Amino acid sequence: MSNYATSDSATKQSQGDAITPELISEQLNAQGGKPSEAVARYATMLGDDALMLGQRLSWWISRAPEMEEDIALGNIALDLIGHARFFLTYAGTADGRSEDDLAYFRNEEEFLSARLVEQENGDFGHTIARQLIFSYYQLGLYSRLVDSSDEILASIAAKALKEVQYHVDHATQWALRLGLGTEESNRRMQAGLENMWPYIDELFEDLDVHTELADGGIAVLPSTLKPEFDERISATLEKSGLQEPAVKQARSGQRTGKYSEHRGYILAEMQSLARQHPGATW
Amino acid sequence: MSNYATSDSATKQSQGDAITPELISEQLNAQGGKPSEAVARYATMLGDDALMLGQRLSWWISRAPEMEEDIALGNIALDLIGHARFFLTYAGTADGRSEDDLAYFRNEEEFLSARLVEQENGDFGHTIARQLIFSYYQLGLYSRLVDSSDEILASIAAKALKEVQYHVDHATQWALRLGLGTEESNRRMQAGLENMWPYIDELFEDLDVHTELADGGIAVLPSTLKPEFDERISATLEKSGLQEPAVKQARSGQRTGKYSEHRGYILAEMQSLARQHPGATW
Repeated sequence: MSNYATSDSATKQSQGDAITPELISEQLNAQGGKPSEAVARYATMLGDDALMLGQRLSWWISRAPEMEEDIALGNIALDLIGHARFFLTYAGTADGRSEDDLAYFRNEEEFLSARLVEQENGDFGHTIARQLIFSYYQLGLYSRLVDSSDEILASIAAKALKEVQYHVDHATQWALRLGLGTEESNRRMQAGLENMWPYIDELFEDLDVHTELADGGIAVLPSTLKPEFDERISATLEKSGLQEPAVKQARSGQRTGKYSEHRGYILAEMQSLARQHPGATW
Repeated sequence: MSNYATSDSATKQSQGDAITPELISEQLNAQGGKPSEAVARYATMLGDDALMLGQRLSWWISRAPEMEEDIALGNIALDLIGHARFFLTYAGTADGRSEDDLAYFRNEEEFLSARLVEQENGDFGHTIARQLIFSYYQLGLYSRLVDSSDEILASIAAKALKEVQYHVDHATQWALRLGLGTEESNRRMQAGLENMWPYIDELFEDLDVHTELADGGIAVLPSTLKPEFDERISATLEKSGLQEPAVKQARSGQRTGKYSEHRGYILAEMQSLARQHPGATW
């Protein structure tokens, strides 16, 4: 837990590997081309997952059971929103939209987030179960995406990967702490897993956009990430005295929002102020 | 705005000047003494201001009108909660309480926050007005507290000061942007100032604890910070096309929570989960 719980200076710029939305635009101009529609869709997908989970996690900042955890989950939330900004900025260059256009002015059915990241925070056990699944998924994904033939996707992934490694660490340490803690903490962590487990398969589903882009080495085929994910998560559950849930997988909405109970509520919270003042022009 | 909006790697540890709650305990053990009751009270006061404002600001993370601002206000919130952790950890050493004991298990009347930081977020103009006043106040305070004869207070202030300088920058740039923007943005920023202005005097009130500790060079007498504060804020308002509000100052509750309309609500949100599971033992 302690790594980012004590991370000092959230506002201090770190040097060197900074990649900003402005830099993405510059890099893109230098390349002299816009991303294709498929690349934009893929970037949107990556951005929407991060955005939705960032929103969900930020709820904890004033409500975590420990101050250390306020900071840790808050930092993870901001990391994710930061990643979302890069991906959405890049996606938006395809048709002249900004990150804010994409975040605040798309409708529910235009988002491409997986159902897992939209799930409610529940208690801390639920949140950690979601973190465990998602950060392990992201670790595998970004570890491969750094080799994408799309240089911008590769550099966003490289930046995000370093942070995701911390997220993985955080989730793993909590799984151990809750799983091996008291009977009650084990029960709650297990309940969190049962609750989040049905949304795993959607993360690893190969959609048309993946197949189209995997050929040219741009996208990672999600299905190819599954074996390593399974291995990693099984190992952690075992070490933590937790059981792999024997629950059915939920029907996939293929990230379209179909079957999603929560997306609308998340967007209502996130978009209402921006929509009241489009362009933040007041 | 852009400094921390693009701050990468919220979870990355920066090196060198890290000061952690654990380090405070160590430093204290090395000094071989506990803080006096007055020092603990002073540290609590400093911590409570930061904690309350951090809670308030974190609300914006999923609701700001721009993604850049989600990140910026989120980072400021986490900075403040970070400062609060240091001050409260130190305060708690006086009688064996932890930061979490102080944050989650004190009652309303035991907090020592100023009314300004408890004020509602309102619209963005209100929030920026509160930031302007509070960060300018903190800048003056921490600039002097770095010379405190209490080494732990001095080192917390030194760490916090660097971050507060960014907060000041952020607030100043927004005051300029809103003040010099449209008629509507100027109107809203001005309304924010009118709303927050009555809570300035309480920040600069010398209480018994200040007088007691100022003699030994431990505390800064708040009243001595006022002239510079007035000068700085007047200069910014003038550059921003904003007026110094001609409103009466609110009655001071001397940080006891008397006359505070909001403290109870903030605490309800912040404390309820921790109190459901004291010691986070499940």
